[in-house]
Amino acid sequence: MEQHKRKPMNEFQLHPKLMADTIAVEEWRLSSLRMMNDARYPWFILVPRKTELREIFDLPMAERIVLMEEMSILAKALDETFKPEKINIGAFGNVVPQLHVHVIARFKGDPAWPNPIWGVGQPQHYDPARADEMMRRVRETLKHRLEPK
Amino acid sequence: MEQHKRKPMNEFQLHPKLMADTIAVEEWRLSSLRMMNDARYPWFILVPRKTELREIFDLPMAERIVLMEEMSILAKALDETFKPEKINIGAFGNVVPQLHVHVIARFKGDPAWPNPIWGVGQPQHYDPARADEMMRRVRETLKHRLEPK
Repeated sequence: MEQHKRKPMNEFQLHPKLMADTIAVEEWRLSSLRMMNDARYPWFILVPRKTELREIFDLPMAERIVLMEEMSILAKALDETFKPEKINIGAFGNVVPQLHVHVIARFKGDPAWPNPIWGVGQPQHYDPARADEMMRRVRETLKHRLEPK
Repeated sequence: MEQHKRKPMNEFQLHPKLMADTIAVEEWRLSSLRMMNDARYPWFILVPRKTELREIFDLPMAERIVLMEEMSILAKALDETFKPEKINIGAFGNVVPQLHVHVIARFKGDPAWPNPIWGVGQPQHYDPARADEMMRRVRETLKHRLEPK
């Protein structure tokens, strides 16, 4: 009797490097929302929970549209929460092939300003209380956004 | 008699730096498609022809969806044309505030691989014949994509 649950072969699994570098925040319709464990920037990623995705055009059109909306919701939430100078968005995947989208709040005077953040310095891990506080603030903005006026 | 044409005050104008750094390729439904004048990478940008746009969430939802489709069409066209290792997509706007999306074909062994391309070396301008050839190849892929099977 094989009653134990087995994972379907195509079940989504977060890439180990994304797992190691980020902290879970919320599960959205298409994507997992996670915060990069780097206190230098308010820096979040969206990871569509689909296997074998490398490029946005690997998603069916309906899910590309959901991804665009999730990117916009996240970008606007970071803008409202942190009042940055600019939101930066990027999808690269040269190192971690699993499709993921970076959404980062940028400030004049942050360590890489005005350049993109990659290749500048080393990550500074959050202390846990500070990470919780960051995520709490973003969740609060998102919650208010979804409540009726 | 004021018969001379005057530009409406809200008419779209490409940012001077984008004008200086890129070459016009095609006009799409929402965006101008332009090629970055940098022979180190097949590197194109999409610039929605709307005034006062800084963030993707400044676009109405219907136009965000068009932008996502234009990004996907361009990404797939570069993938098919140049057979790169990976497509990179980015929207920053820290220096040029006018909303524009970078779509870049990346290769193992290109000058920045596997890192994002920004902040690595200096642009290498195309000679005109080579620029024309690059754009011709991309237009050819795009044209075939739109033809019925």
